[in-house]
Amino acid sequence: RVVKRSVPKPGPNEILIKVAASPINPSDLAFLEGLYGFKKPTPVVPGFEGSGTVVAVGSGMMGRYLNEKRVACISQGQRDGVWAEYMVTTTNLALPLDRSVSFDQGAMSAVNPLTAMAFLSLAKEGNHQTIVQTAAASALGRMVDRLCQRDGIQVINIVRRETQVELLKNEGAKLVLNSSDSKFDQHLSDICRQYQPHLAFDAVAGSLTMKVLEAMPSHSKVVVYGGLSYKPVQANPGQLIFQDKSINGFLLSTWLRRKNIIQSLKIWQRAQKLLATDLKSKIRGHYPLSEVQKAIKEYQKQMTDGKCLLRSEH
Amino acid sequence: RVVKRSVPKPGPNEILIKVAASPINPSDLAFLEGLYGFKKPTPVVPGFEGSGTVVAVGSGMMGRYLNEKRVACISQGQRDGVWAEYMVTTTNLALPLDRSVSFDQGAMSAVNPLTAMAFLSLAKEGNHQTIVQTAAASALGRMVDRLCQRDGIQVINIVRRETQVELLKNEGAKLVLNSSDSKFDQHLSDICRQYQPHLAFDAVAGSLTMKVLEAMPSHSKVVVYGGLSYKPVQANPGQLIFQDKSINGFLLSTWLRRKNIIQSLKIWQRAQKLLATDLKSKIRGHYPLSEVQKAIKEYQKQMTDGKCLLRSEH
Repeated sequence: RVVKRSVPKPGPNEILIKVAASPINPSDLAFLEGLYGFKKPTPVVPGFEGSGTVVAVGSGMMGRYLNEKRVACISQGQRDGVWAEYMVTTTNLALPLDRSVSFDQGAMSAVNPLTAMAFLSLAKEGNHQTIVQTAAASALGRMVDRLCQRDGIQVINIVRRETQVELLKNEGAKLVLNSSDSKFDQHLSDICRQYQPHLAFDAVAGSLTMKVLEAMPSHSKVVVYGGLSYKPVQANPGQLIFQDKSINGFLLSTWLRRKNIIQSLKIWQRAQKLLATDLKSKIRGHYPLSEVQKAIKEYQKQMTDGKCLLRSEH
Repeated sequence: RVVKRSVPKPGPNEILIKVAASPINPSDLAFLEGLYGFKKPTPVVPGFEGSGTVVAVGSGMMGRYLNEKRVACISQGQRDGVWAEYMVTTTNLALPLDRSVSFDQGAMSAVNPLTAMAFLSLAKEGNHQTIVQTAAASALGRMVDRLCQRDGIQVINIVRRETQVELLKNEGAKLVLNSSDSKFDQHLSDICRQYQPHLAFDAVAGSLTMKVLEAMPSHSKVVVYGGLSYKPVQANPGQLIFQDKSINGFLLSTWLRRKNIIQSLKIWQRAQKLLATDLKSKIRGHYPLSEVQKAIKEYQKQMTDGKCLLRSEH
């Protein structure tokens, strides 16, 4: 529901942002359905990321630095989110936007771009020449493919529709498999034998995780970052035992927490530089806050065809 | 089938063992059913571990050292196993038996005792105060509980029958849960909240892995070393993502391979010293090789009530 509330006030090390734009992400939908990994006390304003202008600040040096700046922002822990005209967040969850970055692109500079950069970083740390990813037609998946290609890392992209195979190939993706294809298991096994990927990023879970794990060579790892199939991750115990394979999870905030604030800011700044190219998000439509329900429905109809962006009308 | 074959000859760095005894382990059953992690070319002699006397050696220093000694032994990679009157294996897969150790106990000094010591070692490396294990009523499970208790590590033992709860408690186990109990999920969750275990050893897989993973606190790990349920490992993606939990596998030979030969021998020697106490295997019955089928049936009937040991009649 869209309701009227009074404008919140920033406390120490907090800032008040006059929101410009905020996207609907898959994580927002999971949160709305109560299926996200943590819950916030309700009633609560949804929206994990967005952009806007800092219009008031609490005490603290960073607040003074950010005051009156255009920023990208992330909502804080248990607090109200970005789908509002105003939001309070902590100073470490806002980053000044380059002049070249619009409020629209800036609103989508955290969740997907930073996750894509984290995946690239994990692939590079492990010296991986090839990685596998599921849900590869998502906005994030396409960023991952572009970022990795630029760095010479091959990506075996797994999608679930033939139209998505076309889409990715038209965008320059080299290796794309369709999990709905009757010969998918064989294709996946063949391509993994050829490219020997030891790292996979999986947003689907269910039996697809098991297939990916089985197709990869010994000592491989699947990193689960979503559960789009709404099914438990499955794995063949023999693959874990005899092939020394493993499964773990990825959460952007956990990954970022292991970086210090300087490292995080550097990563976010680098992401901004790529917002016009590799990390660009396609926008399908703009919706005023009052039409949030319509925007959500529109996005759910076809999640891979660009973002639905909520705009605050000030 | 029991067949007559000629006695094999040891090559370089190999020894010929006149077999005394060999147990039937769960891994042997899995191998016979074709469900073990690797297959050997058939026809093949089964049997992964045993004991006997070295009666012939190929070239190499270790062979000369082992000649005429009583040894515990493990069958080698793709080769014939221990359920025979004679077996050839490599010199690094045999260990001289202490005088105090009988052929019967010596025959069971590798698979279970070394695995139990590996689990203890992994628990200590991670500074774990409490661990969880499934299939806790198995010969291995009971060794793990005893070894850990001696070192001050609590074990939350999970079994699947009330009689096994009794059995373990009578043997001194402190924490035992029955997974068939209608309140098991709640009990597991309560006990994990109290003891905060971050490491679990799981031989069952299926939904039990998921329950154990969910009950444990953030940053926990399940190590899968068996699949007794014959079902895929399951895990809630949210637990991996938001709780930073992970799943991997354990195989004794992989673990040992990461130790150098001196370390492995030390571990095996230490295990021998404990064969009379913590690492003792109960023996239910002795069977001549000619009655191997009867022995297997007897073992399958009730796998937690002692080992069925095959004896070579020379």
